Amino acid sequence: MSSVYGKCFKVATFGESHGPAVGVIVDGVPVGLELNNQIIQSELDKRKPGTGKFVSQRREPDAVEILSGVDSAGKTLGSPICMIVRNTDSRSKDYESISGMFRPGHADYTYFKKYGVLPQPGGGRSSGRETVARVAAGALAKVILARIGVSLAAYTVRIGNVWAGKVLIGFAMMDPLRCADPDVAEQMKAEITNAMSDGDSIGGIVEVTVDGVPPGLGDPVFDKLDAMLGAAMLSIGGVKGIEFGEGFHAAQLRGSENNDQMGSEGFLSNHAGGILGGISTGQRIVMRLAVKPTASIGIEQQTLDTTGEICRISVKGRHDPCLCPRIAPVAESMAAITLADAWLSNRAFQGIRS
Amino acid sequence: MSSVYGKCFKVATFGESHGPAVGVIVDGVPVGLELNNQIIQSELDKRKPGTGKFVSQRREPDAVEILSGVDSAGKTLGSPICMIVRNTDSRSKDYESISGMFRPGHADYTYFKKYGVLPQPGGGRSSGRETVARVAAGALAKVILARIGVSLAAYTVRIGNVWAGKVLIGFAMMDPLRCADPDVAEQMKAEITNAMSDGDSIGGIVEVTVDGVPPGLGDPVFDKLDAMLGAAMLSIGGVKGIEFGEGFHAAQLRGSENNDQMGSEGFLSNHAGGILGGISTGQRIVMRLAVKPTASIGIEQQTLDTTGEICRISVKGRHDPCLCPRIAPVAESMAAITLADAWLSNRAFQGIRS
Amino acid sequence: MSSVYGKCFKVATFGESHGPAVGVIVDGVPVGLELNNQIIQSELDKRKPGTGKFVSQRREPDAVEILSGVDSAGKTLGSPICMIVRNTDSRSKDYESISGMFRPGHADYTYFKKYGVLPQPGGGRSSGRETVARVAAGALAKVILARIGVSLAAYTVRIGNVWAGKVLIGFAMMDPLRCADPDVAEQMKAEITNAMSDGDSIGGIVEVTVDGVPPGLGDPVFDKLDAMLGAAMLSIGGVKGIEFGEGFHAAQLRGSENNDQMGSEGFLSNHAGGILGGISTGQRIVMRLAVKPTASIGIEQQTLDTTGEICRISVKGRHDPCLCPRIAPVAESMAAITLADAWLSNRAFQGIRS
Amino acid sequence: MSSVYGKCFKVATFGESHGPAVGVIVDGVPVGLELNNQIIQSELDKRKPGTGKFVSQRREPDAVEILSGVDSAGKTLGSPICMIVRNTDSRSKDYESISGMFRPGHADYTYFKKYGVLPQPGGGRSSGRETVARVAAGALAKVILARIGVSLAAYTVRIGNVWAGKVLIGFAMMDPLRCADPDVAEQMKAEITNAMSDGDSIGGIVEVTVDGVPPGLGDPVFDKLDAMLGAAMLSIGGVKGIEFGEGFHAAQLRGSENNDQMGSEGFLSNHAGGILGGISTGQRIVMRLAVKPTASIGIEQQTLDTTGEICRISVKGRHDPCLCPRIAPVAESMAAITLADAWLSNRAFQGIRS
Repeated sequence: MSSVYGKCFKVATFGESHGPAVGVIVDGVPVGLELNNQIIQSELDKRKPGTGKFVSQRREPDAVEILSGVDSAGKTLGSPICMIVRNTDSRSKDYESISGMFRPGHADYTYFKKYGVLPQPGGGRSSGRETVARVAAGALAKVILARIGVSLAAYTVRIGNVWAGKVLIGFAMMDPLRCADPDVAEQMKAEITNAMSDGDSIGGIVEVTVDGVPPGLGDPVFDKLDAMLGAAMLSIGGVKGIEFGEGFHAAQLRGSENNDQMGSEGFLSNHAGGILGGISTGQRIVMRLAVKPTASIGIEQQTLDTTGEICRISVKGRHDPCLCPRIAPVAESMAAITLADAWLSNRAFQGIRS
Repeated sequence: MSSVYGKCFKVATFGESHGPAVGVIVDGVPVGLELNNQIIQSELDKRKPGTGKFVSQRREPDAVEILSGVDSAGKTLGSPICMIVRNTDSRSKDYESISGMFRPGHADYTYFKKYGVLPQPGGGRSSGRETVARVAAGALAKVILARIGVSLAAYTVRIGNVWAGKVLIGFAMMDPLRCADPDVAEQMKAEITNAMSDGDSIGGIVEVTVDGVPPGLGDPVFDKLDAMLGAAMLSIGGVKGIEFGEGFHAAQLRGSENNDQMGSEGFLSNHAGGILGGISTGQRIVMRLAVKPTASIGIEQQTLDTTGEICRISVKGRHDPCLCPRIAPVAESMAAITLADAWLSNRAFQGIRS
Repeated sequence: MSSVYGKCFKVATFGESHGPAVGVIVDGVPVGLELNNQIIQSELDKRKPGTGKFVSQRREPDAVEILSGVDSAGKTLGSPICMIVRNTDSRSKDYESISGMFRPGHADYTYFKKYGVLPQPGGGRSSGRETVARVAAGALAKVILARIGVSLAAYTVRIGNVWAGKVLIGFAMMDPLRCADPDVAEQMKAEITNAMSDGDSIGGIVEVTVDGVPPGLGDPVFDKLDAMLGAAMLSIGGVKGIEFGEGFHAAQLRGSENNDQMGSEGFLSNHAGGILGGISTGQRIVMRLAVKPTASIGIEQQTLDTTGEICRISVKGRHDPCLCPRIAPVAESMAAITLADAWLSNRAFQGIRS
Repeated sequence: MSSVYGKCFKVATFGESHGPAVGVIVDGVPVGLELNNQIIQSELDKRKPGTGKFVSQRREPDAVEILSGVDSAGKTLGSPICMIVRNTDSRSKDYESISGMFRPGHADYTYFKKYGVLPQPGGGRSSGRETVARVAAGALAKVILARIGVSLAAYTVRIGNVWAGKVLIGFAMMDPLRCADPDVAEQMKAEITNAMSDGDSIGGIVEVTVDGVPPGLGDPVFDKLDAMLGAAMLSIGGVKGIEFGEGFHAAQLRGSENNDQMGSEGFLSNHAGGILGGISTGQRIVMRLAVKPTASIGIEQQTLDTTGEICRISVKGRHDPCLCPRIAPVAESMAAITLADAWLSNRAFQGIRS
């Protein structure tokens, strides 16, 4: 396992889906920032399941408890902040019927090969439940970033074959799918409903944008900002690809089309997605994530069990038919964590001249 | 700057495009492996410019010198291996006419914002020249991986609007574009020739495949194998996106299509691209990189100079009209470095039971 | 703050003296090891205050709760193990009378200079309370080390002017001072009693020995085993020096006296203290720690407050008159953590040959 | 091997005693600092052997070559700085007669156990030759520290049974032994001469002081400044102990004696050695290193060879009879590296408040 992330803003997560709790230590939060449970809780609520028919029906309050790093007046102390959320609605029996089988599309097989045991019921560390810790840490990162005027948004721009034609962030934040385009929101829902009615699931694309990032963040050559954001996003379960700016579309462009020219007010376009040479340009950072269809489906599939026997599996229980609305707030959090880390790291070297 | 990469197999690179030398220290090479200049040199030759009309005409022997870590019998000592390559053909004067201007699509502007100075002539650290060090380190990684039967290949599957319909690795390795499909190799060349004749450049897609990776590599939750490979690839200049297996195509798939079912011989398909839950499955690892069109073009474009004045720029000199054939060997090297690191890291915990 | 330690066996601690809880995440515990609350609790009990007149009278059960990383059968999962201990007996009012003053010998002044605020009541992160987390992590490290036959002991060899003339580990483990020599245990107690009766405190020396360490642990040149152990020990509050083997005594020796010659059974002596060239020899590792007298004393002293005013301070409340019995179990834990990390790190490279 | 050190100011060293070269990459040097060969060279000259009868007679110019990171105007670029020094006077034949034997007090046995092979002739990485890289990196660190008014000095305060009674840094820097006290310099030389005439060697103590360190450096709880300095010093071959301020003497002090009281001008004493709670106080940092007698001696001793046979060994060739004058400049360099790193790290978090 490697559950520690970051250089200056260090995040260490823990917790299995069906264990006593999930949580996180964040080391590297500057002293004197205002912090209280509510700031964390409101972020956690964004990722909370059970708020619509398109997300799994696990119902937990996900109430955060802050164990350290904040004084009685609600100010950060500069010391590690530990936050935990108890697991209260973990129904292990949902998993009994498929015990010992490698669920297709899940980490069961690879955990078994790596650790010699299957993940815990519900996926253990490979469960989406682990992302509670990321969102809690992301809330802290956002507190830091807010001070320098950085804001983030993640929303759904594609479900199956339905694309968003425009992006209305305000709408997306209130839509149960985080769909960015009111004109296609119903079509997106229909894509999911159709898949659900077949006992199936569907993939999509989540876009993450970040505004207000100062130019100069990111450290060539290995800790380029896009490399760090890429690792952060690809560490989220279900994300199978990431692109910045024109991304894969750049493959069919010419340099004269893809280069961002400059005028007196700065860049005249943003094909680069806000990052050049691994360093932020000061423009909006734009990235898109490929989200695979949920692996847990009701349709029966063939697999093996741990003894090597072929068997048929149909995964019952609470599962999101589409991961996009669940991944969006996590992606936002991981972007915030990465940018807070990049901003703090950059401060170490700023303004030194002989 | 952050020019150190890896946990067990640590790579530290140095060198500006137009400075005395580029090179690398690799710390974490096991003792007793056979190593000589030729092993490194043959890898370096794969990335050497000047071997075709589609790559820049900088002509340097790029002869590697091994300064440490190998005994007189050609065996590694377990100590850090330093390798350097002298810069012998750096024509700073090519850059005189555009001195002080932010080249569109380049890191000039962001370096200026971060460091307060423009990169050195030729791009300094942001130059493709820096990748010499990565390829030298990758050669060492391949020596390690060869022992466990891992082999890698990177090749061009798209240039502009021309896609490879099949993959013949043997052909690709001999093609000047590393084109994977003999049937479209001429068309790909035409795409480039057309762009060149317009003073322009063109983008593409490079695919990297890795065979023989044992199951179990990669460390959830933050050092997932795909997250690590993603960071490695996105740290290469010009790469704007990465996807694994079905990648962005998974957005339009259903779970029943995207899940890899299993039979008595193992997986029946490889939509996942060889990684599930951030851990290698033992299948072929498949990833694709979005490669932007070369930023340096002859077509005149508008930009600013460091004083804030608007100016017109046309970049002369030696520049690849398409980055794909140059990025392919570097991507192969970064994949090798990442996998060698993951393999060594994994050994720390293997086989311990009470 | 930097509360993350280790490369393979990673320890992240949190918690203020007077906050809700202290605790730790340990990432890097191999899968399948037996673990339960009792194993941790018995180690925590060793450092628990309130077990004698020579240690402070804070009375807390220090009951550990394991929040993750262990399955219902009491086996480790390979995932991060989070352990917390609630603070139940934190009397902030003890500190009210000296509020705003820099206690001499404490971190008050330096925290104020670094963070702009005084540490929390009771010292916050600089409190000995923080070591609960280290001991809990150390218990996990000992579980790993036990599998390869490594055992550790830390005991008091000097208090003030009284030296232990011999080392009886069994006696030390039951002595309230962890005094190693039954013949001087009473004299050591008298040293402390005398200091106490003067409202004063007294320093000492703790020795740590480790048996069963396999040869080959430690990584030249910067992660030498003695360098890592040195950092671990000097990170414990109150430790002002460390030496290995002959240590400072080697300053007056000749090479012919200090070198450890070898016979057919191996080394004929152990002046080196079990480490040569930064790598374990396979002999007993021997180190000694200089422990300063407790800073909190009843005797009135002069200091400043945060406004720069000179004031007189006399520290009341629960304070150990001598830190040695409190530091011994913590030193044992930090040695265990460091050695578990070194052992796991070393496994990454073992047994690879071409 | 682990030859990478530091968080913000990262140092990666390479090179065997009898290989082509030794050197270092320093990543984390801020942009725009003045740097040239002479600045590095003058530091390297301080550690150069062959400048007196008390140091080994290896004669090499040790001319540094800077390969990267500096522009043509002699300003740092913010990119990694690679510096190499060629080995020109490595006489492997000096070691032929003792080939295959474990030299007592050397790392031969432990390298053999760890790596399966003996170190290279002359000690390979375990040779004092490796410290060339540390001194070159230390020179860069001093350039950074000079900007904030930090200065360092390391000198000999004890050889065998002769102690310095006072410290005159100016004298020490010119004395061949770096003896701090002119009154005992001749006695110290006599200690060494006597040991030499017996074919033996002698130990000593080196003191390192640092002035001008701002308060606030060092990161509790694991990266305390004394812990980091301790690791840095104990990573130097031949150092067997370190203490800060009163150090081991504190064991016999009472709190009322050891605490540093404060007056209107600040601290009234410096028993702590400039570090409280792991954070610099702003006072002089004072540490002392226990230096063992040189392991290579002419006196015949008993040892084993790699086949397990008992043999007699007498080490001929160029060896310092006392390591103190050689360790002093290296200790100064490691202190500078550690403090530059701590200063840069601290900048990341400074001055952030809500």
